[in-house]
Amino acid sequence: MLTTIPQLTAFIQESFPEGVSFGSIEEVGDGWVLMRLPVSDSHLRPGGTVSGPTMMGMADVSIWAALQTKIGPSPLTVTSNLNINFLAKPQPVDMLARARVLRVGKRSGVGECWIYSGSEEQMVAHVTANYSIPAS
Amino acid sequence: MLTTIPQLTAFIQESFPEGVSFGSIEEVGDGWVLMRLPVSDSHLRPGGTVSGPTMMGMADVSIWAALQTKIGPSPLTVTSNLNINFLAKPQPVDMLARARVLRVGKRSGVGECWIYSGSEEQMVAHVTANYSIPAS
Amino acid sequence: MLTTIPQLTAFIQESFPEGVSFGSIEEVGDGWVLMRLPVSDSHLRPGGTVSGPTMMGMADVSIWAALQTKIGPSPLTVTSNLNINFLAKPQPVDMLARARVLRVGKRSGVGECWIYSGSEEQMVAHVTANYSIPAS
Amino acid sequence: MLTTIPQLTAFIQESFPEGVSFGSIEEVGDGWVLMRLPVSDSHLRPGGTVSGPTMMGMADVSIWAALQTKIGPSPLTVTSNLNINFLAKPQPVDMLARARVLRVGKRSGVGECWIYSGSEEQMVAHVTANYSIPAS
Repeated sequence: MLTTIPQLTAFIQESFPEGVSFGSIEEVGDGWVLMRLPVSDSHLRPGGTVSGPTMMGMADVSIWAALQTKIGPSPLTVTSNLNINFLAKPQPVDMLARARVLRVGKRSGVGECWIYSGSEEQMVAHVTANYSIPAS
Repeated sequence: MLTTIPQLTAFIQESFPEGVSFGSIEEVGDGWVLMRLPVSDSHLRPGGTVSGPTMMGMADVSIWAALQTKIGPSPLTVTSNLNINFLAKPQPVDMLARARVLRVGKRSGVGECWIYSGSEEQMVAHVTANYSIPAS
Repeated sequence: MLTTIPQLTAFIQESFPEGVSFGSIEEVGDGWVLMRLPVSDSHLRPGGTVSGPTMMGMADVSIWAALQTKIGPSPLTVTSNLNINFLAKPQPVDMLARARVLRVGKRSGVGECWIYSGSEEQMVAHVTANYSIPAS
Repeated sequence: MLTTIPQLTAFIQESFPEGVSFGSIEEVGDGWVLMRLPVSDSHLRPGGTVSGPTMMGMADVSIWAALQTKIGPSPLTVTSNLNINFLAKPQPVDMLARARVLRVGKRSGVGECWIYSGSEEQMVAHVTANYSIPAS
């Protein structure tokens, strides 16, 4: 099982290396995680807005990590569908992503993620994603 | 209008700097573009698969660029919704993204993007995205 | 403003007549509604499952109604994008839809809806939808 | 296999009864179908527009039918995710839905559907949907 921050962090580094660039695990529980991305200039768009690809990457990694707390280690679990709605322009401050599993079966899982700017009072995007879980 | 490869490339560099990391414009027309991403190791997941965030970023930039051929320069046009379906594992070869506008109005636009691995015979993902166009 | 059950019910009957077939408003608040659909045989699929189109219709009407509590009466507000994830097979009992507004601007709005089977302990689908609001 | 119009029509009537209300199969091929819905008043919204739930139902049934030409008869294949973008207001004329399979595996399938108003020159919506295929 992957239920501690060091375990999950090491597993992301090993199995989803690009994921590391979308932040670090700050909290973890049964079926959920909280990730934080310290926003640097490379993630900014004109007007000081964090880019869409950054938010999508953050959501994808955090929901994948939340699933791993239920089924992991399952490194070959891959995203089959992702849908994102952008709600507000993020400020140029740290981004937070709170992801949780909505359903998990033997062959697939679904989760959602709220993305926040600065604190959990300011939501900037909502994401749902489906994952395909290979036979183990 | 942004209807040549140099014009559109310069506009992406200026207005969507993170976009540059998702490839370069290879063809452009009225309402569509073709982008190519030479795949390097940093975009790979275990098993030699290009990551989901890379494909989402590529789709977002290419549909945004296709819209710019219709409405540009409009640097503050931003994504409001994006939906991606992953269809097959990409090979560790160049990725292609062919994007086109489906609808464009005064305040919003919709486009789709096919992502291919190696050549346009091997489709790996399909994306639709909505954009909000600010009053000019 | 459309903030009471009779007002909102009358407005749906007048402005979204097909909506009536997807249930009735049971609760209403500022930016949210709860709808109930007494499930009859016509909504069932093989195995006693409520059909996908029924759940999509229910979600569309309930989020549209939740938006009307914020901006209504706005009869020509129309759906621009809807995304649904089906989580579990509903039982052949009453369906509930709890919808709320996530963001509302002058020209567009976004909401989400949880669909439940029997009671709010059994979630069967999650929906997000975008709406285009005409200039008034 | 379900490769003729009478076979597929009978199978929809038997396995997806609500589907019948969203039109009839007009053409069928390997991995695709064309459906037609003669628009009656019950599907209209204010301003003579066909309702969103009607288009979503039509897309769901037509993509499900296209999948059946590949894997059928598989009556318990169910929708796991559906995403629709509305592009233009339909006219109060017949609706057409052209659906095709994008990917089909042992456990899941993905398809897309274009919805047209009157003729295939006037597109009004685009849909992608994922289906879960039970072990046979």
